[in-house]
Amino acid sequence: MPELRRDPIIGRWVIIAKERGKRPSDFVVEREVTKGGFCPLCPGNEGSTPPEVLAYGRSGGGANAAGWSLRVVPNKFPALIIEGELDKRGEGIYDKMNGIGAHEVIVETPEHDLIPPEMGVHQIELIFKAYQERLEDLSRDARFRYIIIFKNQGAAAGASLEHSHSQLIALPIVPHRIQEELSGCQRYFEYKERCVFCDIIRQERSQNIRVVCENDHFVVICPFAPRSPFEMWVLPKRHSSSFLSLGEEMFGPLASLFLETLKRLYKAIPGVPYNYVLHTAPLRMQELEYYHWHIEIMPKLTKIAGFEWGSGFYINPTPPEEAGRFLRNMEVENG
Amino acid sequence: MPELRRDPIIGRWVIIAKERGKRPSDFVVEREVTKGGFCPLCPGNEGSTPPEVLAYGRSGGGANAAGWSLRVVPNKFPALIIEGELDKRGEGIYDKMNGIGAHEVIVETPEHDLIPPEMGVHQIELIFKAYQERLEDLSRDARFRYIIIFKNQGAAAGASLEHSHSQLIALPIVPHRIQEELSGCQRYFEYKERCVFCDIIRQERSQNIRVVCENDHFVVICPFAPRSPFEMWVLPKRHSSSFLSLGEEMFGPLASLFLETLKRLYKAIPGVPYNYVLHTAPLRMQELEYYHWHIEIMPKLTKIAGFEWGSGFYINPTPPEEAGRFLRNMEVENG
Repeated sequence: MPELRRDPIIGRWVIIAKERGKRPSDFVVEREVTKGGFCPLCPGNEGSTPPEVLAYGRSGGGANAAGWSLRVVPNKFPALIIEGELDKRGEGIYDKMNGIGAHEVIVETPEHDLIPPEMGVHQIELIFKAYQERLEDLSRDARFRYIIIFKNQGAAAGASLEHSHSQLIALPIVPHRIQEELSGCQRYFEYKERCVFCDIIRQERSQNIRVVCENDHFVVICPFAPRSPFEMWVLPKRHSSSFLSLGEEMFGPLASLFLETLKRLYKAIPGVPYNYVLHTAPLRMQELEYYHWHIEIMPKLTKIAGFEWGSGFYINPTPPEEAGRFLRNMEVENG
Repeated sequence: MPELRRDPIIGRWVIIAKERGKRPSDFVVEREVTKGGFCPLCPGNEGSTPPEVLAYGRSGGGANAAGWSLRVVPNKFPALIIEGELDKRGEGIYDKMNGIGAHEVIVETPEHDLIPPEMGVHQIELIFKAYQERLEDLSRDARFRYIIIFKNQGAAAGASLEHSHSQLIALPIVPHRIQEELSGCQRYFEYKERCVFCDIIRQERSQNIRVVCENDHFVVICPFAPRSPFEMWVLPKRHSSSFLSLGEEMFGPLASLFLETLKRLYKAIPGVPYNYVLHTAPLRMQELEYYHWHIEIMPKLTKIAGFEWGSGFYINPTPPEEAGRFLRNMEVENG
């Protein structure tokens, strides 16, 4: 059983996933994405993943057969375990709990070599639909307080399988980084009685120097204080704290702008590894006036070294005004 | 002039180092340490760095000549600039200031291929002595509020030069990560009237399952909630919030235990890339009863991916009890 442990100083939690434990000699310093060979995420190999929890596009054929256009399965090597009761304990001055949670893999396409910027807009729509459906389903589990959905694209961004996929981790606590964000937004709201993200959208659209692209419902900006070159945030223009409350009619506009954004990024830096993370309100706190759901896209172009580790301070060689102008001026077909 | 910018939500600062700016096409995704060829840190090449600010061991010969055993020089490509007045400004809802600071390189040895675990204990002593001397000197500059000293060892840990060196960055603000640590320690002290690190040392020495090694004055532990496999903290047993107040007679014991620690780590995982960071109190706040200076050593064995980015939550496959036992049982010569 994995264990959740809290740092007694800053309150950061870590997952100690013992089952994944290795002897020191087993550590491979730079993990590579396996190319070629057997892919457990490809159609026909459904038996090599745990049984699916969601599939789209299958017309006929049973569960866990080929014919799907998107599939969600439990992670075969989960960081947290779904079965069991939460058990919080102390160990002297330390706090820990057993590693209850969910860890799922969203297989974004049946095509092994298809990466998101090359997908059709309908496929991207399916991906967001699956995120929402899994969020909805898992949010009914009272043990969970937060669900994080993220994608690692490319070995340098932490992907260990080549086949395009995202991941979902349901947690029994609200992660430190999200708690910080919530507190920051709340402080801003107490002072100004406005949502800080709404203010950011207003200022960015009026300055128009860091806006990458927009449509009627969403806007993509390079944030003012980006951690990495070409960092981008995708924001809904209408205030809403939870991705769960996004109406079905909005998946089209979101998918189309998101696809356009990835195309711009890939045209600017072909083959760039990146991470993206969906930031949404904690479960059972659906409409907060001070918080605004969004997606943060982080291209992996700089190394995180001692300075960043020690200080939480990032050095970024590319001003977001330059990144914004560059990405904005890329010529791409609309999604 | 580089610029310091504050994220309006969580208050994290970033350095936008425009002078380092590149076209998107210039980004190299995995930077490699240059092997062989010209080394600007080797004796004889003193002219290819900015003029030194400190040198030890030279008997005769002028400044910036060979014959030194340790040398400190300004970084040729600094993230922050030493000349100028602080200028804080707003841009709508955003905050920024000009990038005033210092960025120095501590060349740890004249020998190009010598890495710290292979150095003599006297050389390690010189390194810590240089850290303190530079801290002392720069702390007199009223524009600076924090000085971070760190080392990147190996390309995977962010080093771009092979020749063993550490770095120092003096900042006009206290970094977010340090501020978090200070606040956490202060909260603990308000509640318990004890230093959390002193309590950690007490519990660790009594449990004796995560202690790696110790001597009369220092102790090395694998922390209870480590971010990465084999993370270690080096702590002074006597409470003190600032590395600046470390007496000269303590450099020997510190160097000897630190060297032993690196030897254990290298014997466990030969050639492991790592970062270490000196955590000490902000400048002009020298003796705090709630804070305890220490050094955090982070082997670079796992990739930081979307999950960690988005959540501030780390997945660690190696329980610190296993890492501790393994490192403790390594047979190494004493430093």
